[in-house]
Amino acid sequence: MADTLKGIYPPLTTPFIDDEVSFDNLVLNLLRYENKLLPGYVLFGSNGESAFLTRDEKLQIVVKVREHTKRILIAGTGLDSIKETIYLTNDAAERGANYALIITPSFFKSEMKHHNFLNYYTRVADSIMIPLIIYNVPKFTNVNIDSESIIELSSHPNIIGLKDSTENPSRISEISAKVDSAFKLIVGTASILYTGILSGAIGGILALANIAPDQCLQIFNFIRERNFEKALEIQNRMIPVNRAVTSKFGVAGLKAAMDLLGYFGGHPRLPLEPLSEAQLIELKMILKKASLIE
Amino acid sequence: MADTLKGIYPPLTTPFIDDEVSFDNLVLNLLRYENKLLPGYVLFGSNGESAFLTRDEKLQIVVKVREHTKRILIAGTGLDSIKETIYLTNDAAERGANYALIITPSFFKSEMKHHNFLNYYTRVADSIMIPLIIYNVPKFTNVNIDSESIIELSSHPNIIGLKDSTENPSRISEISAKVDSAFKLIVGTASILYTGILSGAIGGILALANIAPDQCLQIFNFIRERNFEKALEIQNRMIPVNRAVTSKFGVAGLKAAMDLLGYFGGHPRLPLEPLSEAQLIELKMILKKASLIE
Amino acid sequence: MADTLKGIYPPLTTPFIDDEVSFDNLVLNLLRYENKLLPGYVLFGSNGESAFLTRDEKLQIVVKVREHTKRILIAGTGLDSIKETIYLTNDAAERGANYALIITPSFFKSEMKHHNFLNYYTRVADSIMIPLIIYNVPKFTNVNIDSESIIELSSHPNIIGLKDSTENPSRISEISAKVDSAFKLIVGTASILYTGILSGAIGGILALANIAPDQCLQIFNFIRERNFEKALEIQNRMIPVNRAVTSKFGVAGLKAAMDLLGYFGGHPRLPLEPLSEAQLIELKMILKKASLIE
Amino acid sequence: MADTLKGIYPPLTTPFIDDEVSFDNLVLNLLRYENKLLPGYVLFGSNGESAFLTRDEKLQIVVKVREHTKRILIAGTGLDSIKETIYLTNDAAERGANYALIITPSFFKSEMKHHNFLNYYTRVADSIMIPLIIYNVPKFTNVNIDSESIIELSSHPNIIGLKDSTENPSRISEISAKVDSAFKLIVGTASILYTGILSGAIGGILALANIAPDQCLQIFNFIRERNFEKALEIQNRMIPVNRAVTSKFGVAGLKAAMDLLGYFGGHPRLPLEPLSEAQLIELKMILKKASLIE
Repeated sequence: MADTLKGIYPPLTTPFIDDEVSFDNLVLNLLRYENKLLPGYVLFGSNGESAFLTRDEKLQIVVKVREHTKRILIAGTGLDSIKETIYLTNDAAERGANYALIITPSFFKSEMKHHNFLNYYTRVADSIMIPLIIYNVPKFTNVNIDSESIIELSSHPNIIGLKDSTENPSRISEISAKVDSAFKLIVGTASILYTGILSGAIGGILALANIAPDQCLQIFNFIRERNFEKALEIQNRMIPVNRAVTSKFGVAGLKAAMDLLGYFGGHPRLPLEPLSEAQLIELKMILKKASLIE
Repeated sequence: MADTLKGIYPPLTTPFIDDEVSFDNLVLNLLRYENKLLPGYVLFGSNGESAFLTRDEKLQIVVKVREHTKRILIAGTGLDSIKETIYLTNDAAERGANYALIITPSFFKSEMKHHNFLNYYTRVADSIMIPLIIYNVPKFTNVNIDSESIIELSSHPNIIGLKDSTENPSRISEISAKVDSAFKLIVGTASILYTGILSGAIGGILALANIAPDQCLQIFNFIRERNFEKALEIQNRMIPVNRAVTSKFGVAGLKAAMDLLGYFGGHPRLPLEPLSEAQLIELKMILKKASLIE
Repeated sequence: MADTLKGIYPPLTTPFIDDEVSFDNLVLNLLRYENKLLPGYVLFGSNGESAFLTRDEKLQIVVKVREHTKRILIAGTGLDSIKETIYLTNDAAERGANYALIITPSFFKSEMKHHNFLNYYTRVADSIMIPLIIYNVPKFTNVNIDSESIIELSSHPNIIGLKDSTENPSRISEISAKVDSAFKLIVGTASILYTGILSGAIGGILALANIAPDQCLQIFNFIRERNFEKALEIQNRMIPVNRAVTSKFGVAGLKAAMDLLGYFGGHPRLPLEPLSEAQLIELKMILKKASLIE
Repeated sequence: MADTLKGIYPPLTTPFIDDEVSFDNLVLNLLRYENKLLPGYVLFGSNGESAFLTRDEKLQIVVKVREHTKRILIAGTGLDSIKETIYLTNDAAERGANYALIITPSFFKSEMKHHNFLNYYTRVADSIMIPLIIYNVPKFTNVNIDSESIIELSSHPNIIGLKDSTENPSRISEISAKVDSAFKLIVGTASILYTGILSGAIGGILALANIAPDQCLQIFNFIRERNFEKALEIQNRMIPVNRAVTSKFGVAGLKAAMDLLGYFGGHPRLPLEPLSEAQLIELKMILKKASLIE
């Protein structure tokens, strides 16, 4: 079952105390998620503040999490440098990561075109020990990998899927119509969980799953039971929450929501800052309206 | 039934001969569409090259089309100026337009915020003789009206719907969950026809419906019969065609495709230019692959 | 001397009372500007809220202003439609406009390329009775006409200049090096008045000149006297003011500043709104710091 | 003299042979630059393909270059992670780097605001052994640090300057008017070398200086002699060249031009690709037109 990658994966946030990684709290959160029917976790994805972690911290996170779970671990090991990406991925694999989630290279934005994506992903996939999932997230990279590149890359034996964090599910359906059915399409934001699954996605890597794993699972399961009305109803209730913990309040909002829901959220790492009092009040109202807190 | 606005509406292109409006060819196209189960038409929408038409030409188009159909006519009468919008809309209404499709004001992009949208749409809706449909099309306006504004405006008695031309169907589901069920949500691009309808839209105003009305109707009808697989299959086949006649080749591509499919397409108006030979060949291949031509 | 277009031109704001054009106040402002060594005025430019004016209102403005001045009048008559642009320009010319300031067409943003600019400007220039000044203002149009197009168009006998409202003076120097010296380059924002003149511009059409005409003239004159230090000093003092009445507070800010400086500013037209109390206080502080008010 | 940072600095490209750093060719290029009156060099800046280098490769570059020059070395050691930035900077400093050029953090683009810039730069500056130069380059980061942040940061004893790679020299003049005169403003692109120096910049870090160091020095020196006409003439001749080796053809173009001019350029590192034949021909024509090659 693990191999199907079906289901909902939370991209774990990285807890900090005094601006240093708190592995204890990472494990405490993990143990709560182990009670849910989540097939696995993403480590140091965008919301894991990967950008602010050192190489050593990333590897330690793999070690600590692997000590406490047998589930699938997907590690966010992509960097602009092909060499560094390969080294980091293989080091993470040796410590227990099962898949590598590789963000599109993006420093030279205007030059990242079809051939460059093929160059990059082929080189990386050829040299890493674990399967590669392409990660497309224009809101952070200002790069949007085209469908043609994905389709072409999908035939590489070690490139097994795509996490797409645009809000455009027609990308999912278009790609899904043209790739082998074994290629895994994963939505990267809860706002298109419903439409994405209906368009051919097999699961979601969702910031929202850090705070509302049950609701994400319900949407997923209701769709599989073809109870679309119920799925849509929950999805609609979650949209303002999802926006609050992503575009509106960012990682700081996601972590504050975790604190409100009994997980350890804490502050984001510098240079990010925690929510202001006013933002926190607004966040509470949004969670209340969605019946996540009382 | 007309009042439900359910179904598929082609935004009619405006034929030109020697850079002047050819009303004869407009009517010839119209008569072909009258054979399809299309509830109505959009006149001088974006793809009708509204931006290049004079006020008089717009009004003449309403007159000519009304002479040859009893179906719903939705006129694209929105301009930045509230005054001009009201005058033009009422003149179009007197000539037979049933609804006004009013694009978001956009000249002062960075200043178009919640209050400004409320100001604009309330003023216009108060003073026009026909119901108003809000038209959101960021790819042309660089303005994206927020859901909150839509929801607030939906309570105005003369604002009856939204055409949303983003590719993000979560906007549809989110708004649909918060507005009165009589408020009509219409997708503005065929790439989200399938997911949009599944998210609460009641129809589509689709450039693609100018060249593939049958396929658009099939997608729409298969969804209503809950035959999602079939709907998705046709949608996926149409996505490359839709892209070709919108983002890839623009109005010139749409018109060239019309010519290839037996309608009168012709050239776009200056300053736009017809497709190059190479583009035309590419377009033919795309239409062939989608089985629209042989 | 008029023909050189050298110097500083305020793009006159359009006063409104109860959301209707107040010609009386327009004339009152004008008479104050007549005391300054300004060679002329721009009528219904971007800051004249052209986007919100009807065709009739624009023509009346030409008439009223022409009744009270013998100076150069540059009318902002550009629209996406070539036909409407020609009609409006010629009507304005008959009423006393000396030059037409023609904004780049922009509705089909992604399709406005070299050939389309040539098509558009050549057609318009061929058919209007007064000389044409190209107007490039990406912050409102999201279109940035390329230097090559400008250089090619500069050889048209009726295209006599460019107003460039980017903040990039290397465009000025690059174009200036390649066009006939009779082609007039005009900066469109006070933030590059100093560097623009040093790069080959012969003047400026500046929102700032509505409220600080003396300072704009001083910058201009100090440069001509090669007193660069003094010019730069005044320019630097004016930059925060210029930002306040353009990108920061928009037309509402410009009009509020006019009120504070003894002109008639008033409210912008709907859907724009006047400044809030807090914004007004901030604006006053900015004007005070720049020694424009006490 | 070194401390003034006045003058022209080439951001050295990184030569690759078979996709591996060629230190020999790096040194060969360096020795040619040592014949010019360049006060120093930037190591692994954007055009040094820093994004594609490993940590070890960066440090080896410092070692190798320091072995062959006594001039100022400015190292591009900024990363999103504050921790990694500090470690890398101090390791580079120990190997001979004199200044750290620290790019704005940019992963969470929409959240990089005033406070976050203060957090980031203060933390980094507090902990590094060499002086910090802020590096603003929106074309790569999609982040544009505001003038207020720069002005506030300029009072930190270890933050000594700004490299600004926008094409907007009014940023230079505005900041220059508000910071201590010891704070060094450096333009980051040759297109505003002329206007930037006239606005208060004391030098330039210029991709163009890799291929046309003499011309860059001439522009700089003519301005200091107040021979503006001559400076502007050379600047205008260089603008098409500068565009070719930056926005038009990127690093591949810069390296191809180096090859044509007797330096070792070679291919950019994967995933970038060398110029096509057609691009190479165009590049040659541009260099010929500017009299850089025959």
